[in-house]
Amino acid sequence: MDRKIDLNADLGEGFGRWQLTDDEALLASVTSANVACGFHAGDPVTMRRVCELAAERGVRIGAQVSYRDLAGFGRRAMDVPAAELAAEVAYQIGALEVFARAAGSTVAYVKPHGALYNRAVHDAEQAAAVVAGVRMSGAATAGGGPLPVLGLPGSRLLAAAASAGLPTVEEAFADRAYRADGTLVPRTEPDAVLHDPEQVVKRSVRLARDGEIVAADGTVLPTGARSLCVHGDTPAAARLARRVREELAAAGVQVRAFA
Amino acid sequence: MDRKIDLNADLGEGFGRWQLTDDEALLASVTSANVACGFHAGDPVTMRRVCELAAERGVRIGAQVSYRDLAGFGRRAMDVPAAELAAEVAYQIGALEVFARAAGSTVAYVKPHGALYNRAVHDAEQAAAVVAGVRMSGAATAGGGPLPVLGLPGSRLLAAAASAGLPTVEEAFADRAYRADGTLVPRTEPDAVLHDPEQVVKRSVRLARDGEIVAADGTVLPTGARSLCVHGDTPAAARLARRVREELAAAGVQVRAFA
Amino acid sequence: MDRKIDLNADLGEGFGRWQLTDDEALLASVTSANVACGFHAGDPVTMRRVCELAAERGVRIGAQVSYRDLAGFGRRAMDVPAAELAAEVAYQIGALEVFARAAGSTVAYVKPHGALYNRAVHDAEQAAAVVAGVRMSGAATAGGGPLPVLGLPGSRLLAAAASAGLPTVEEAFADRAYRADGTLVPRTEPDAVLHDPEQVVKRSVRLARDGEIVAADGTVLPTGARSLCVHGDTPAAARLARRVREELAAAGVQVRAFA
Amino acid sequence: MDRKIDLNADLGEGFGRWQLTDDEALLASVTSANVACGFHAGDPVTMRRVCELAAERGVRIGAQVSYRDLAGFGRRAMDVPAAELAAEVAYQIGALEVFARAAGSTVAYVKPHGALYNRAVHDAEQAAAVVAGVRMSGAATAGGGPLPVLGLPGSRLLAAAASAGLPTVEEAFADRAYRADGTLVPRTEPDAVLHDPEQVVKRSVRLARDGEIVAADGTVLPTGARSLCVHGDTPAAARLARRVREELAAAGVQVRAFA
Repeated sequence: MDRKIDLNADLGEGFGRWQLTDDEALLASVTSANVACGFHAGDPVTMRRVCELAAERGVRIGAQVSYRDLAGFGRRAMDVPAAELAAEVAYQIGALEVFARAAGSTVAYVKPHGALYNRAVHDAEQAAAVVAGVRMSGAATAGGGPLPVLGLPGSRLLAAAASAGLPTVEEAFADRAYRADGTLVPRTEPDAVLHDPEQVVKRSVRLARDGEIVAADGTVLPTGARSLCVHGDTPAAARLARRVREELAAAGVQVRAFA
Repeated sequence: MDRKIDLNADLGEGFGRWQLTDDEALLASVTSANVACGFHAGDPVTMRRVCELAAERGVRIGAQVSYRDLAGFGRRAMDVPAAELAAEVAYQIGALEVFARAAGSTVAYVKPHGALYNRAVHDAEQAAAVVAGVRMSGAATAGGGPLPVLGLPGSRLLAAAASAGLPTVEEAFADRAYRADGTLVPRTEPDAVLHDPEQVVKRSVRLARDGEIVAADGTVLPTGARSLCVHGDTPAAARLARRVREELAAAGVQVRAFA
Repeated sequence: MDRKIDLNADLGEGFGRWQLTDDEALLASVTSANVACGFHAGDPVTMRRVCELAAERGVRIGAQVSYRDLAGFGRRAMDVPAAELAAEVAYQIGALEVFARAAGSTVAYVKPHGALYNRAVHDAEQAAAVVAGVRMSGAATAGGGPLPVLGLPGSRLLAAAASAGLPTVEEAFADRAYRADGTLVPRTEPDAVLHDPEQVVKRSVRLARDGEIVAADGTVLPTGARSLCVHGDTPAAARLARRVREELAAAGVQVRAFA
Repeated sequence: MDRKIDLNADLGEGFGRWQLTDDEALLASVTSANVACGFHAGDPVTMRRVCELAAERGVRIGAQVSYRDLAGFGRRAMDVPAAELAAEVAYQIGALEVFARAAGSTVAYVKPHGALYNRAVHDAEQAAAVVAGVRMSGAATAGGGPLPVLGLPGSRLLAAAASAGLPTVEEAFADRAYRADGTLVPRTEPDAVLHDPEQVVKRSVRLARDGEIVAADGTVLPTGARSLCVHGDTPAAARLARRVREELAAAGVQVRAFA
């Protein structure tokens, strides 16, 4: 049996004096770091430091691109025209590239943040603009290929990426409730987020080992997700990430980067 | 005789709805474009467009790095700690790189903007931080070498660049008054800037052809400047740049990029 | 007969080094100045200067509130939660109040800018949030009453303002094409904007003198608009505004502020 | 005997998603809240909430004005021209006024933040610009008088405020080391900040009860400071503030706002 999974988390989400994510602790557990690039969070000093720490630990560096919205932390959907959005995505990837390179690594993938992530699930134009930005950047993996896009299964984003010839990687969420059709219960509904660490750990193992997610109504959903997103912006996040990693290992699942 | 000179100008200094420089007209005359990278001016769409136009015309693309100060257009000196400044410089270079690359070109040099340019003339720590940022970026010329730094002769910036092994390029200003010691008359003094186009054109030719600048008191100063800065942020700027270029050609001076 | 109309225009829409509107020229013609408050445009020095010039000329000062979006000039709709939007509107009004007060005037009304204006036409939640922000600000007219809201006839914004007890003022556009139902032809369609100055002048006079707008299909629409919006962000804008004002006077229409 | 002292702290220093100060806990102990106004920290929602909480507890609201520098948290000195700085100060005061007013309170004083505070100690031009901004704002106390300025004894800021007819209030720091001449030991030196809570509490009591500060070399300095600054940006800050307040009360010192 060849069970393996990637663990990704949002890192470097401070800005200047403000810190949010315990980057050092999370980097001990995850295999892919979605690094904020300065548009919703992420100052250059933090970007540099996270890239250095990630490279030292063999953690892959991804560009966590966002709307330009520090005041809203990138959580407010914006009607950004496609040409602007594409150029803004490329700009962010380029800025992160220098820090990945300085650390002896590369930008290995792209994952949109917050409202852009959510919008690119359903909005074909913005999804295409993000993909256009990835291509415009000309960024390449260590092997010379185009950058993979990490996103939600069934999203417009992954469809647009595939159409454009970019590799796609599906992710799942162990701490989010799913509907029977495989979509996420929106955060605006109660019980959208699971708060019991033990339950999150168990779901993570089942997801990675058995390829199954249990929906809120009990339906067992098959999943081909190659990456599992663990949240990084709460005090308990680093502890939970470590527990997830330990239990995956104990269950015989190899935790390693998809990229 | 082998007389040649580079013409550089600040381009892409709009931001979103606001435009300042007539990029298309200036690109018809200059050989090096100092492209704003988003910190004092320069949105991603503009950066992309200027890089495309520059690449089409064979104009070299330089990173015009700045303090983070849109409200002050980068004209207010800031006590930015060295580690922050270096990372901010690297960030800007990286962001520009993707647009240069998308246009089939590369970032060919770095020139600080405004208050950072002026501060790096005298402030050894900030000069070193700018150079550290250029090196941190890992950006390389088309030939694979480190990026040259364009600056004022005798400045701490060029000294720091040389110490760090970066090529240096000295520039002169045809529309600025000089003192007998070769320094510029500060803008705070009257007559610091020359406004007569014919005089500017004549000084340009003498500078490029004869290697001479005449100081305000009549002293003839020898200069080894390999680049001549023409200003781009006034309505008449593009016309003057064209006149300078034509007269240089008429005087047998080859106008071509230093890089 | 008592024909009268207010002329309003967007002013102070520069930011730092960038200027857009010819504030001084426009202030010679309009009776109400929609002053940018720093979120889409409008630095404090410009706000102060526009308020001084407006007060000298007896022009009313209005708060042109916007989404927080300098990069997009407030033209990109944003899903700002209601509590945030209300507080942002109040913040902008307060900032403008000090400059109006310093000039011996007051903030006399509020008009949303760009994407917020458009969104508040149809979006009841954001319309209510803008109104909540106006009320939260506690700003009062010179007479001590609540601030009027200037907007599109039939908009959710004016409905929300009326429900909350704020005076409402309807405006019309002489240079925009209307549909037979009284709504504006969207800017995304050709012929949405009228470019012929003579036509704009004639429509202005008919609107103010006769209370009529002619729709694109020829339908004559009655209008009760008490203010006419003239655009300020093109080089010809100030000339057109002056022509409109002169022709209104010649037609016996009194041009004076509604507030 | 009539011993009394004001306790002031910096509050509302988050921005959007990022929080820094435990505003609710600190408001239980301090009598004056220096509220961030959006230039170094402080989004409108936070400003509103802090003003409401302060008003409920009878805590005075002060405008903590800053350079425009979110990325640097206002800790980087900037060469802002006087006219710009004055207008920026007025802008911030105005923005805060609406939230103070909405909470049934008023802006009761002004205190510069970070690098602006430090610069205004020695820089007469920037000190005068801050004072000009306070006056430009036209903000008045509940009693109708001009706003007091809170600052360092002997500073240019307080001198400029006094010259301009503004009330001045001197503050002292219980957790900072002093030199024998009454100036603060700069933060760049070791032992500039005292970390032992018990020592800070004792110094607070001696300062408020006896009007004495002991300098680093043992010299006993008399002080007329009417306000004591307690720091708010560390996890232990709220606990320390409460201890200070309790011990002051136990020592017979009345803790109440100066304004």
